[in-house]
Amino acid sequence: MEEHIHHTRVYFDHTDAGGVVYHANHLKFLEHGRTEWLRELGVEQDWLRDAHQLMFFVNRVEIDYLAPARFNSRLEIRSRLERLGRASMLFDQTIVDADSDRKCCAAKVRIACVSTKTLRPAPLPAAITGRIKHAI
Amino acid sequence: MEEHIHHTRVYFDHTDAGGVVYHANHLKFLEHGRTEWLRELGVEQDWLRDAHQLMFFVNRVEIDYLAPARFNSRLEIRSRLERLGRASMLFDQTIVDADSDRKCCAAKVRIACVSTKTLRPAPLPAAITGRIKHAI
Amino acid sequence: MEEHIHHTRVYFDHTDAGGVVYHANHLKFLEHGRTEWLRELGVEQDWLRDAHQLMFFVNRVEIDYLAPARFNSRLEIRSRLERLGRASMLFDQTIVDADSDRKCCAAKVRIACVSTKTLRPAPLPAAITGRIKHAI
Amino acid sequence: MEEHIHHTRVYFDHTDAGGVVYHANHLKFLEHGRTEWLRELGVEQDWLRDAHQLMFFVNRVEIDYLAPARFNSRLEIRSRLERLGRASMLFDQTIVDADSDRKCCAAKVRIACVSTKTLRPAPLPAAITGRIKHAI
Repeated sequence: MEEHIHHTRVYFDHTDAGGVVYHANHLKFLEHGRTEWLRELGVEQDWLRDAHQLMFFVNRVEIDYLAPARFNSRLEIRSRLERLGRASMLFDQTIVDADSDRKCCAAKVRIACVSTKTLRPAPLPAAITGRIKHAI
Repeated sequence: MEEHIHHTRVYFDHTDAGGVVYHANHLKFLEHGRTEWLRELGVEQDWLRDAHQLMFFVNRVEIDYLAPARFNSRLEIRSRLERLGRASMLFDQTIVDADSDRKCCAAKVRIACVSTKTLRPAPLPAAITGRIKHAI
Repeated sequence: MEEHIHHTRVYFDHTDAGGVVYHANHLKFLEHGRTEWLRELGVEQDWLRDAHQLMFFVNRVEIDYLAPARFNSRLEIRSRLERLGRASMLFDQTIVDADSDRKCCAAKVRIACVSTKTLRPAPLPAAITGRIKHAI
Repeated sequence: MEEHIHHTRVYFDHTDAGGVVYHANHLKFLEHGRTEWLRELGVEQDWLRDAHQLMFFVNRVEIDYLAPARFNSRLEIRSRLERLGRASMLFDQTIVDADSDRKCCAAKVRIACVSTKTLRPAPLPAAITGRIKHAI
């Protein structure tokens, strides 16, 4: 599947007293990227919750911080699905400063599909895996 | 009722590139103070949600930022219930730097008790108003 | 001056266990709106900091929360400058759900222009007040 | 070195609409744990910045999310220094629910010591490595 790109900006609330984006906030940007990737495939997570009682639970993140992202920077959140499991997805994601083209971080993020009631793993609905496979 | 004091610290995630606590984060500290005030009265909000299907919804905040709070500062969140309504509470709260005794902000926060299902106002349970009145 | 509109989305990190946008996060959205309003006038806050050693400090917020904003909602942050002082600006801002056209909150936000060194009030540079007056 | 334990609570701002702590917020808790570990050794990061023009920059995180942490949970942030480099530290950290003793997440966090001016790696001051070695 081709890389999906989500464009965003760094605002003050993303930064810390070090003058750069606080490290935990990169995970928020990565999640926005995955959300927009799903949206582009026609998958809305509120529908997933209401119609299927399912939600996504991040179960592993490996992230390398390569260069600081600063206030006002325009960022590209680049997302690629690396592996689609029965109840999981593995993403390869990077955040790139759109002006300098410098990579701010590179991450592998593993997502589980879980029941909203029990929080236990549950297979991804066929409607979704179908769209994903089609996109790949 | 006497003022309730909750002690906390400023960590990096609370600050922004200006080097001080990001203005929206003071509202988090104020909420922590109200949560601990309720806890001291024996009111746990997860019990309120599970046993009564009620939660608190902030419906108005007036806040004056008086002095910046910096990384590592020890803060006191001082909370006083100013008015108890049938389905609402009005708090008078301040955040004070514990070392300098300087006031960082002063706020009035109005809380509504709402149904977790409908998000519409609902009377505070007698068990809670009883404890609050006793405390006042 | 005409109202400025900034478009944004609610992602998971903005919500809380109540299922709606956490009250403090509305202040972040309002700040994004003011930042984009300034950008449209040609004022970048990193330039303001580097060239003038000035930054903006929120010194008062009055906010009424009118309706919850939910995950995935498309929001409009509507900003209007109500008063321009020598070293301050007063904004009238609302957040509107773009689908239902329902107002989520209405706020008055007072901003001081301060020195990045001393954090004390400092006059807005003429370059900025000129652009603002021109826009009004 | 023995494990350092920092006690904290989950408040509403840490949770998301899934009803549990938002995954990025675990990284904040881990950072609070490291900050308190340093404080116990007598190392204050504002002093490090002011006296040595140094700060810590997270350069890699590997985190496994094992069980959700819920609103109101009492958490223990357990931190152990695994390796001390010339300009880096590697931490082994877990977050444990203090009531159930269940592990919420396990992480390896690599920190670089960097210049506040250049953001480039800089050796940890001897005063700090001395205290750390003494503690180990």
